[in-house]
Parts: sequence; structure tokens; C-alpha cells
Amino acid sequence: MKKLLLLLAAAAMVACSTVKQKTLTLTDPLTLQSPDGTLTLRFGLSQDGTPMYALAMGEREVVKPSAMGFTFRGERINNDYDSRLHRTYTADVDFHSGFSIESEERDSFDETWNPIWGEESEIRNRYNGMTVTVAKDGIKMLIRFRLYEDGLGFRYEFPDQEKLTYFVIKDELTQFAMTSDHTAYWIPGDYDTQEYSYTVSRLSEIKAGHNPDYNASQLICSPNAVQTALQMKTDEGLYINIHEAELLDYPAMNLDLDPATLTFTTMLTPDAEGYRGRMQTPCKTPWRTVMVVDDARKVLASRLILNLNEACAVPDAAEWVHPVKYMGVWWEMIADKTKWSYTEDYHSVRLGETDYAASKPHGQHGANNDNVRRYIDFAAANGFDAVLVEGWNEGWEDWFGHQKFDVFDFVTPYPDFDIAALNAYAHSKGVKLIMHHETSSSAVNYERHLEEAYSLMNKYGYDAVKSGYVGDILPEGEHHYSQFMINHYHYCITEAVRHRIMVNAHEAVRPTGLCRTWPNMIGNESARGTEFKTGILPNHVTILPFTRLQGGPMDYTPGIFEMDMAKLNPASPGNISSTIARQLAIYVTMYSPLQMAADLPEHYAVHMDAFQFIKDVAVDWSESRYLLAEPGDYLVIARRAKAGAKSKANLGKDGHEWFVGGVTDENERDLEVDLSFLEPGRTYTATIYEDAPGACGIGDDPAFNPAYSIRTVRVTAADKLSMHLAQSGGFAISLQ
Amino acid sequence: MKKLLLLLAAAAMVACSTVKQKTLTLTDPLTLQSPDGTLTLRFGLSQDGTPMYALAMGEREVVKPSAMGFTFRGERINNDYDSRLHRTYTADVDFHSGFSIESEERDSFDETWNPIWGEESEIRNRYNGMTVTVAKDGIKMLIRFRLYEDGLGFRYEFPDQEKLTYFVIKDELTQFAMTSDHTAYWIPGDYDTQEYSYTVSRLSEIKAGHNPDYNASQLICSPNAVQTALQMKTDEGLYINIHEAELLDYPAMNLDLDPATLTFTTMLTPDAEGYRGRMQTPCKTPWRTVMVVDDARKVLASRLILNLNEACAVPDAAEWVHPVKYMGVWWEMIADKTKWSYTEDYHSVRLGETDYAASKPHGQHGANNDNVRRYIDFAAANGFDAVLVEGWNEGWEDWFGHQKFDVFDFVTPYPDFDIAALNAYAHSKGVKLIMHHETSSSAVNYERHLEEAYSLMNKYGYDAVKSGYVGDILPEGEHHYSQFMINHYHYCITEAVRHRIMVNAHEAVRPTGLCRTWPNMIGNESARGTEFKTGILPNHVTILPFTRLQGGPMDYTPGIFEMDMAKLNPASPGNISSTIARQLAIYVTMYSPLQMAADLPEHYAVHMDAFQFIKDVAVDWSESRYLLAEPGDYLVIARRAKAGAKSKANLGKDGHEWFVGGVTDENERDLEVDLSFLEPGRTYTATIYEDAPGACGIGDDPAFNPAYSIRTVRVTAADKLSMHLAQSGGFAISLQ
Repeated sequence: MKKLLLLLAAAAMVACSTVKQKTLTLTDPLTLQSPDGTLTLRFGLSQDGTPMYALAMGEREVVKPSAMGFTFRGERINNDYDSRLHRTYTADVDFHSGFSIESEERDSFDETWNPIWGEESEIRNRYNGMTVTVAKDGIKMLIRFRLYEDGLGFRYEFPDQEKLTYFVIKDELTQFAMTSDHTAYWIPGDYDTQEYSYTVSRLSEIKAGHNPDYNASQLICSPNAVQTALQMKTDEGLYINIHEAELLDYPAMNLDLDPATLTFTTMLTPDAEGYRGRMQTPCKTPWRTVMVVDDARKVLASRLILNLNEACAVPDAAEWVHPVKYMGVWWEMIADKTKWSYTEDYHSVRLGETDYAASKPHGQHGANNDNVRRYIDFAAANGFDAVLVEGWNEGWEDWFGHQKFDVFDFVTPYPDFDIAALNAYAHSKGVKLIMHHETSSSAVNYERHLEEAYSLMNKYGYDAVKSGYVGDILPEGEHHYSQFMINHYHYCITEAVRHRIMVNAHEAVRPTGLCRTWPNMIGNESARGTEFKTGILPNHVTILPFTRLQGGPMDYTPGIFEMDMAKLNPASPGNISSTIARQLAIYVTMYSPLQMAADLPEHYAVHMDAFQFIKDVAVDWSESRYLLAEPGDYLVIARRAKAGAKSKANLGKDGHEWFVGGVTDENERDLEVDLSFLEPGRTYTATIYEDAPGACGIGDDPAFNPAYSIRTVRVTAADKLSMHLAQSGGFAISLQ
Repeated sequence: MKKLLLLLAAAAMVACSTVKQKTLTLTDPLTLQSPDGTLTLRFGLSQDGTPMYALAMGEREVVKPSAMGFTFRGERINNDYDSRLHRTYTADVDFHSGFSIESEERDSFDETWNPIWGEESEIRNRYNGMTVTVAKDGIKMLIRFRLYEDGLGFRYEFPDQEKLTYFVIKDELTQFAMTSDHTAYWIPGDYDTQEYSYTVSRLSEIKAGHNPDYNASQLICSPNAVQTALQMKTDEGLYINIHEAELLDYPAMNLDLDPATLTFTTMLTPDAEGYRGRMQTPCKTPWRTVMVVDDARKVLASRLILNLNEACAVPDAAEWVHPVKYMGVWWEMIADKTKWSYTEDYHSVRLGETDYAASKPHGQHGANNDNVRRYIDFAAANGFDAVLVEGWNEGWEDWFGHQKFDVFDFVTPYPDFDIAALNAYAHSKGVKLIMHHETSSSAVNYERHLEEAYSLMNKYGYDAVKSGYVGDILPEGEHHYSQFMINHYHYCITEAVRHRIMVNAHEAVRPTGLCRTWPNMIGNESARGTEFKTGILPNHVTILPFTRLQGGPMDYTPGIFEMDMAKLNPASPGNISSTIARQLAIYVTMYSPLQMAADLPEHYAVHMDAFQFIKDVAVDWSESRYLLAEPGDYLVIARRAKAGAKSKANLGKDGHEWFVGGVTDENERDLEVDLSFLEPGRTYTATIYEDAPGACGIGDDPAFNPAYSIRTVRVTAADKLSMHLAQSGGFAISLQ
């Protein structure tokens, strides 16, 4: 092992749990290069024995020397007078300085793996690895680095050892020191919601509390904190993206910025007692990832997060996990046309006691037998796999905002929802129903009912569930992203595997690539989606693929054709900021194996020519090409359908079909689509769905006009298509 | 409704959540008399509209005018800047003053009911009731009083109403103003343990923190708080006992004493966020009870707590709930002779990953096949119903003190415990095994496994489980007696009903009479029991029937014959402070339908003559007589066996057998036992187990000597027996 001489040039040593800032001169560090030589990682100890790392792309510094480590809670004191009146502990344990390096190991890895579903059928996982064992007071910690050509992953590992078995993390102090005042595409750091619009600003302008978005369960963790995946762009044109991978049995990370030094420090989500990780060796943290590439398109093409997760742990997944294109009895409730609830007789419901059969229906219950059949009919007629039905079960009269423990039982339908008959009807038409489990964030109640609820799904032939976590978490004091809930979400996934159920959890933690290991994690929300209606900014879908989608697919629920919300409920006026062509584009630009056609059948019925794209578009892909991309501005992505996949959308495909989507922000834009990705020599029929002349997707602009036009042309790989995108507009192309 | 003029003479109005002290002159209150006219309740409002009650026995004031009411948490604020950085609420709601009286109702009740098991076969439930509806700001609250001849119960009820549906209790402010500086038999108020020795002192001398007892999960709630049931004695010879009944969906109560005014105020157990009750109307608090009698024996005879609970809610309970006399592979671990664990190879266990089959057994595992068979043989040979086996399942190597979530799975036996073969063997001998579920206080983990664990019990023919809650509660921040855990314990009971399983929960909340409604709550610990070995004070069992046993039976685990702990493990010397005769007495003085013979078969084998009493004594009773009693000093109780009960102990009984037990404190004592309770004219053979001459039950006294002698005499109802009890001694008599 090399001897290290690392000079601590200036150290502002402050209290353990606050941001710690050190300037490190890496004189003779351990270095690691990416397989292609693009990236260089340096690692060493500072003069005070703090582990520090730095990352460079060629000669360009990407992450300045940054500290690593932890503060642990002290030992419980349980035998003096004070400890009997308050939980008391010995002093916090400094586990971030005073280390020595014990050993290092190197490894290299190169494999190609095939996801069950995904943006492509083959993913290469190639990295060079370095694992450094550091020790303090006889306690060992491994820092494992994996350096890819597009980024770095590192994690802390705590081996089983006599001197460290159970411990409690008070703070993780991993830093990411930025080199200058980059442009950031950020949402506020929050322990309970991710459903924010993005702010595009300089790092120095990050003010989490000033984001204007409110929602029901919101707890901003610090005035200058942001969430991951955090996309940044340097003035030199580098794209830096910080996130985490394989978040299991550990709280989710926020990044707290010190505006003075432009350094981020991890800010983990606390539990009900304010601690941030109950650990038992052997154990490890999630991977902390720093992607750095010189082209925005490479961010979208990166599989860094998936590759840092473990291989599929569900041996028979290919037998029962499948992509899904679906419709749902949902948007009509979101748009206040109908309701989840059944009656207005009760302002307070007790499950098992409240007699719904004796109540007077308010007549606006969406999940009634006739309406569900109407959706089934339309879905079956148009090649959909499934129909989601929300509001099918008792309890919606008082489910929201009360931290009500026994809020739903997940098995008792409303009187007008015939679960047996509706499933039988759907199956007779080749459609499945998708189950809905809103937990109202009462996690323990959900766990109590989980086995019975999943068994009910098996009984009636549901194979997918949309779950939800709206409102403050129960048990009280826990947060949506604290370790308890991370474990809860994972428990639901692994229990679902036992029942061969696919899970699409909303309001759960942002994904971190776990779908590689558990492909029945077919979807997640974990960001602001279409349900925010007029609250979606024009640049939103140009940013999400750089941020939220880095960890896994999002159930964004596109496909809205009727932009005027007053048409559904006059009391809720306003236009959605989108053209119809843009709605179609999202099926390509926002990758998900679970794609919804969210609007109502009657709204599609008046635009069946445009709806044809939604019917045609695949939901599983053998290849994806990121043609044009700039976060916050525009995206153009082309994808080739996978043949023989298990969704109806792909079943008829032979693998030569391409679909292209393009979206822009609040600016209208002319983009050229180079078709050179097509098979050379082959002629394709391109059906182009584009913004009509005069279209404008800005919802509150007097010129708002979502109109589309459709044209068909014959093209080859040699062609380029010139596309005009309206403000907040887009286009979609199917190439057969 | 009468007009009230209640003068507030002196009011120290302080902040809502601190102790509030008012002096009330009840000029023209509502009054309620007990059916026999002994007790008088007065209720009215103070000048500031505070509901106040007072209780008298004849002319003697028992509870001085005492305030009632609550502070509620304000409404959640969720739309301003600050609310996004911290959970914020509007100001606390004063729901303890400013009331007006809306209406009052009266009722009377008199019934006799038959418990499934108990101290007698018939219990009379007779009270006069008064329900006062008070209102503030249009919100109604009912205060329901039930006045018995031996005490008062009252509760708050919140009806379903437009202006109050969901609310959060910050503090319950019910007061119990004592008239003077009574003698109290108290243990410290604590949110997490009840396993204290009692201090006997004046009220003014209560100093909770100065109790010398420590244990692993201890959180004293205030320097002057005590737990209930709190027994007091006035200098005039009244016995006052404060407790609660029917504790469901609400935190357990402590009593915080203001030493200056000798007034107790309720101090509920907080949840992880510090709140003390998440409520949904219609709802009610537990009953707050004040027993007052003029003879200590009447405290023991009182059924106030049971009567305030609801009738049996388990229609088929008589078919499968039954008293149990049992032995167990348990004391040998408690006494450090053997261990719960299986190996010393692992200091950190992960269930499902740790390979026990590959480990080296440490050779001291108590729950091994041979040892369990030995207990089964002895239990079968001596007429026991069951054998408890602890330490049968994987996970004991690191179960304690780590707040480990996945601590046990409750279904995986150690390699040397053949669950199928041992149950078959036991059943072939007419004995059942008793399951053991130590949760290590990881409540959510237990719930995850509960269905499978109970199903495993059904599969192998277990019909009773001892559960345990040692250590700090998970979810973090909750307490053993917070609302979350109260609901957890109750969930286990009701789930057990579905599986026809009887539950004996240790470290769970002190019982409050719920066994009337759910008789499968066959036992509880919830106090310092025999497992504390040398830590049991001589006066302990003379107090428990006045305190802990008021709420329901305790699994005290008596029957220790080998008092010298060094005989089991030389490293743990010391004598238990008891004579053998006293151990026998406890089977009568400490009523429980679940009685253990806790010592080892080999210790009984050398005293089979004394063991005969344990074999003979019934565990279910048709009649009980409290012959002599003074808390902290002595007890003599006689009970008549119930014929035909389902325990083997009672099966052979014809209903004429009486058993008498007597215990004393640290003082030797001569007591006369009047046998006039016997059937007149009938002659009985009395087998008397008594302290031998020279016996001394003080464990650390050089004269310690637990020796017994046995004699047989013929007696009738006209006889009196003169008994000598050694220091910390006792006697037992069987009358056939």
C-alpha cells in the first residue's frame, strides 16, 4: 500500500453534525481510472485522518476533494439517575476523522445483462473497482468505489466485527464539493414529498423554502437542501448528476448545500427519534453516485444506477412480470368530475361498523359497475392490457389528512362495485383490472391487511397493484423516506413477489434502480405527475428524465386530450400546459414499462386519429436512441419496439418498429430529427403527430391551442425530419 | 337541569399542560349516590366552567373537588412557509374550562354475570349512573359516572358531531385531589416498565426517581409520578385505590402528584411525537376509577374494574378458553443454569441467513429435545396441563437491547428442538406445549409474522402463547404503554381469538379488566415477578393483589423450592426471600387462571411432600374469601375450587375443596384463620403446609431457612387455626 501524505490546507472544524468543510491537497492519493480512461477517482486521508475523495474527467475537476464519514450515536446509558428520566447516550462518536488506511483491493468487471423490461434489451455493466479498508479505534470500514465511463459509485460497508455490531447513525457526512456555481435543476430537499416543480438556478441561488409548491405531506429538511437525482450543468458543458443506488434498509438521502463553499453534504431522512440509520453489521449504505458526461444525451443513456444494483432476485420473473398499457377510472376523480367516495352520509367512517348499504349514495362514485364496464369495453376495444379502478373500496369518505390508523381494509368493495363480476367481465374481454391500495400512509395498518389484500388479488386475477401513501406517515414521527418506510416499501415488494404481483407505488420513495433486482417494481410515482393538471410547468417533462427517471420508471399517466379542466368540472377551470401531440410524445420520452392512457374514453373518442398513436406505441424496447437533449429545454428520443413482449402493445410487433417522441419547454422550437438510427436500406412509413400550425401549449396563454395534425411520409435512414414544436408542445412519430 | 353556582375560591391558573390546581366550592352540584348509599359523587362546573367532581364516603371526603378535561393539539397548518420546515399547528385548544352543562341523564343497573374463569363463579355488577353532557364552543362531551358501593368509575365520551371528528389529545387533565397525606403503596410512573418494587410512604414522600430498581426499558415520566393501580390508606383507615378500566385505543395513565396540594393529575403515555391520543369520534376514554372502602379485604373482593368492562365478546370462549397449570423450560435460564441461545458462534444473527445447523452448539441450550421431554414427563406424571418452552426458536444470540427489527420469526426452531416430535410426544402424554413469542419489543416485526406464527401453533396443537416485550419499543419513539402499543397488544388478542389461542403477554401494559371481554387474555406479567429472584422484597406479594391484580391476573410464576441461586449457577449467588410454604401460599393469594410451577423437576423431586400442594391446588374458583389483609403486611385468602373446570387441576374436584394461603412481609407473624367459611356441619381434612420452627424467609439474613413442615388435621366450620408465619414466610392449607 502506498504511503499517503495528504495536506490539510485549511480546515474549518465545526461540530460533528453540522457541515464540515475541509480543503484537501491530494499529494499522493490512491487513484482509480474508469475502463475507458475518461474519469479518474482519487482517494486518501486528510491530515486529521478524514477519508476524502475527488473525481476528475480528464484534467477537469468534477468533484473537489470531499470528506466522507459518519457521526454515530453513543451507547445507551441505562443505569444512572438521569437515564431513567430521559433516554441518554454517551457522547456522539466521531467516525469521520482519525482513520488510517489498512488495505486496498482492486477489481474490474464487464458483463452484459438482459433486463426483464427496459429501454433496451442488453445493458453493459463495466467498471473498475477499488475497495479501501479504513480503520479507527480498531473498527473497520470499507469504502467501495466503482468507476464507470460515465460516473462513480461508492458505498460504505461495515463488515461483521467484534467491535461493531449494532450501531445508530446520527449523521452521514458524505460531501460532494462542486467546483463552481453550476446550473442546477432542483427540487427542495424534503422528508415527505417529491412532488415539486423544478427550479433551474445557479447552485448559489438554491432556496428550498422558496419553491412555491405546497402539498399535504411536506417537510423541507433545510433551507438549502435539494433532492436527488440532482442534475447539474457546468458552464463548460459538463453534465453532473448526483443520486443514490440500491437504497435498502437505510434512509433516503437529501443534499444540503453550503452556499459559501458550494459543497453538498448528505442529509439523511430522520426516524421518529431523529436518528438516521439503525445498523447491524455486516451492512452497507446505498451507493452514492456521481455521473459526469459531456453531453446531455449521455445522461439519458447512462445505466449507472441500474448497474450498481444487484441482478434479478426473482428467478421466475419472466414468467409473470410484464409491461402494461392501461386505462383507469382515475382521471375523472382527479379532475373532480366524479369521486372516490360513495356517500356523503358519513363524515367519520369506521370500517366494519359503517353501514354503506344503508347509506344514500351521492351518485358521483366513479368506481361503479356500469362505469367500470365502460372503461373495460373501451380498453378491450383498443388493445389495452388493463384498467385501474380507484375508489373501489370502503373508506374514502374520511381517508385524508387525519392520520387515521384503520383507514382502509383493502378487501371490502363499495356496494356498487361487484369485484367478482367486474373481474370476470374484464377477463372475458382479455383485460385485467389493476388493484388500488391507497394506504393513506398508515403503513402498519396496510401491513396488517397485506396478506389478505394480496390474496384477494390472486383470487380475482389481479396481477398488478397501484399503492399510495398520501398524507403524514403512521407510525407517527416517521417520514416517507425514513428507514422504517424504506423497509416497508421493500417489504411490500417482496411480499408481492410471493403472490406474483406487480407493484406501482405512488408517493413512495424515489427509486434507486431496485427494479433491476425486483422487476415487479413495475412503476413508481415519486415526482410531480400529470395529476397536478395545471400545476405542471412546460419544462417539467424535459427535466424528469434527467432526475426522477434516473432511478427507475415513473407512472407519469400521460395521454390527456381534453386540456380544459372546466369541461370536467366547471368549478376547476384552467388548461393543462400541453398540446395533444406533446401528450403523445411523452409515451416515448418518459420511459416506463407501465404506461397509462389517462384521459376518459369519451375524450379519446373524439380524437381517435391521434389516439391511434397511444394504441400503437410499444411499452417495452430493445433499443433507445437519445437524439437531442438539453435539460429544461427539449428532448427527442427514439426507441425500437421489443418483439414478443408480454404486453398487448408489443405482442404484434416484429422488432422493426420505431417510435420517436419530442418535447420542448415554454419555447417553441424547430428540431431536426436525424433518422440514421433506422435500419439502413429499409423503408418505413412514418406517421407524424405534430403540433398544428398556431398551436400553443401554454395553459394560461390566451393563444392556448392544443391542436395537432397528422401526416404520413415514407422515410429511410438517410432522411431527416424537420419538426416544429409549439410552446410546451411536442411531436410523436411511429415508424413501421 | 339544576342551575349551578360553583365558586372558584382560589385558582392558580398556569399553562395548559402543567398541573392545574383549583379549589372549588360545590354549592349546588349534581349528586349521585351509590346503590347502598355509602358513596356520594358530586359534579359541577367551577366559575370558569371547568368540570369538577368530588367523592365522599358518608360524611368523609375521599376526593376533594377535582378538575376534569383536556388540552387538544391545534389544527395542522400546512400552507405557510414555516409549516414546510416544521410540523406546525394552531394554538393548543383549551378543552378543560369554559364549559356549560347541557343535560344530565340517570340510570341504574344490577346484573349478575358469570366469568369464564375467575375468583368466583358469579359477579354482581350494580351501580347508579349519571351522564352529564357538557359543551364548549358547540362541541359536546359526555362525562359518564358509575357509582358502585365500593367505588367510582367515570369516563369521557366524545359523540360523533360535526364540530369534532378527528382530534389529538395533548394532555388529559383529570385530577384526583387527595384530602391529606395518605400512606401510598407506589411504584414510579414510567412509560416503559412496571417491574418495580413497591415503596410504602406518605404521598408527600413520593420521589419516583429515587426508587432503586433499574431495568432495560425504563423511562420515568416525572419525578413525582406513580403508576396505577395506586393503593392508598388514610390515617382514618379508608383504603383508596385509583386505576383505570377498559384501556383500549388510548395511552395508559400515570398519576403525577403535585406534592404541595396532594393532587394527582393524569399523565398519559406519549407517542413518538409527544401526543397522547389520536381520536376519532365517536370515542371514549378508559374509565378512571376511584375505589374507596373501609376494610383492606374489600379492596381484594372488589370487582369494580371487571364490572366496568364490557361483557364477553368471544361467543365460543367457553369451548376453548381454560385455566392452565403449567411447568416450563424457563427458570433454568432465568437462573443462569442454561441459556435461551444455541451457540456462541455468532454475535450478530440474521434470520434466514445465519446457518445454525453449521454452528457449534454451546451445549447449554435449555430448549433441547431431551430436556423438553424431561419436563413433559414430569408434568404429565404430576397432573399439569402444559409445559412452556422458551428459547426454542432461532435468534436468541443477539436479541436483546439492539432495537433489532427482524429479531425473531416465531416459526423457525433451533436444530435441537423438534417441534413436531415434541408436540406429538407431549400430546401422547396428555400435555400441551405452551408457545413462546419474545418480540424483543419489535412490534411491527411481530405483526408481520403473527398470522404465520399463530397458524404454526394451530398446526402443532399449541393453544396458548406467552409473548414478551423486553427492551425499547420499535417503532422507535413509541413506548410500552403508548396508544400504538395498546392497540398492538389488543390486535394480538383479537387475532388470537381467530386462532383460538390464549395469550399471556409479558411486559405488556398493566391489565385493566379487559379479560372480562376477551377471556383468552389468560394472563399478563406487567409487574415485578418471581424472575427477579433475589430482587423480590418480602412485602411484594402482600401488595400486588391491591395494585397490579386489580386489573387482572398475573403470571407471577411461583413455586420456587430451591431458594439458593448459587445451586443453579455459582456465579449468581443469593437466596430468594421466601420460605417454601410461602411459595405454596402464593398459588392462592395471587389469583391467576394460569399458574406455573416454576422450579425445576429435580428440585421438586426432593420435596414431593410439599409439591403435593402444587399438584392439588385448583386454578379456577367458585368462591373466594378474603380472611385477613393489610397491604404491605399480610394476606390470608381462602378459595373454593370450581368443579368441572377444564384444567386438570380442577377436573377431579367436586366443588367442596377449599384452599387457603397466607403470606407475611418481613415480619414474622401469628395469624388466626377462622374456618367459618366452610360448609356448616361438614368435616374436612386440612393439610397444612407451614413454616418450620426456626424458618426465616429473609434471603440475606444469616438465619435464612426456607424449611416447611406438613401436618394434617380434621376441621369444621367451627374451627380456628392458629398459624405462625416466619419472616417473609407463609402457609398453605388444602381442605378436602
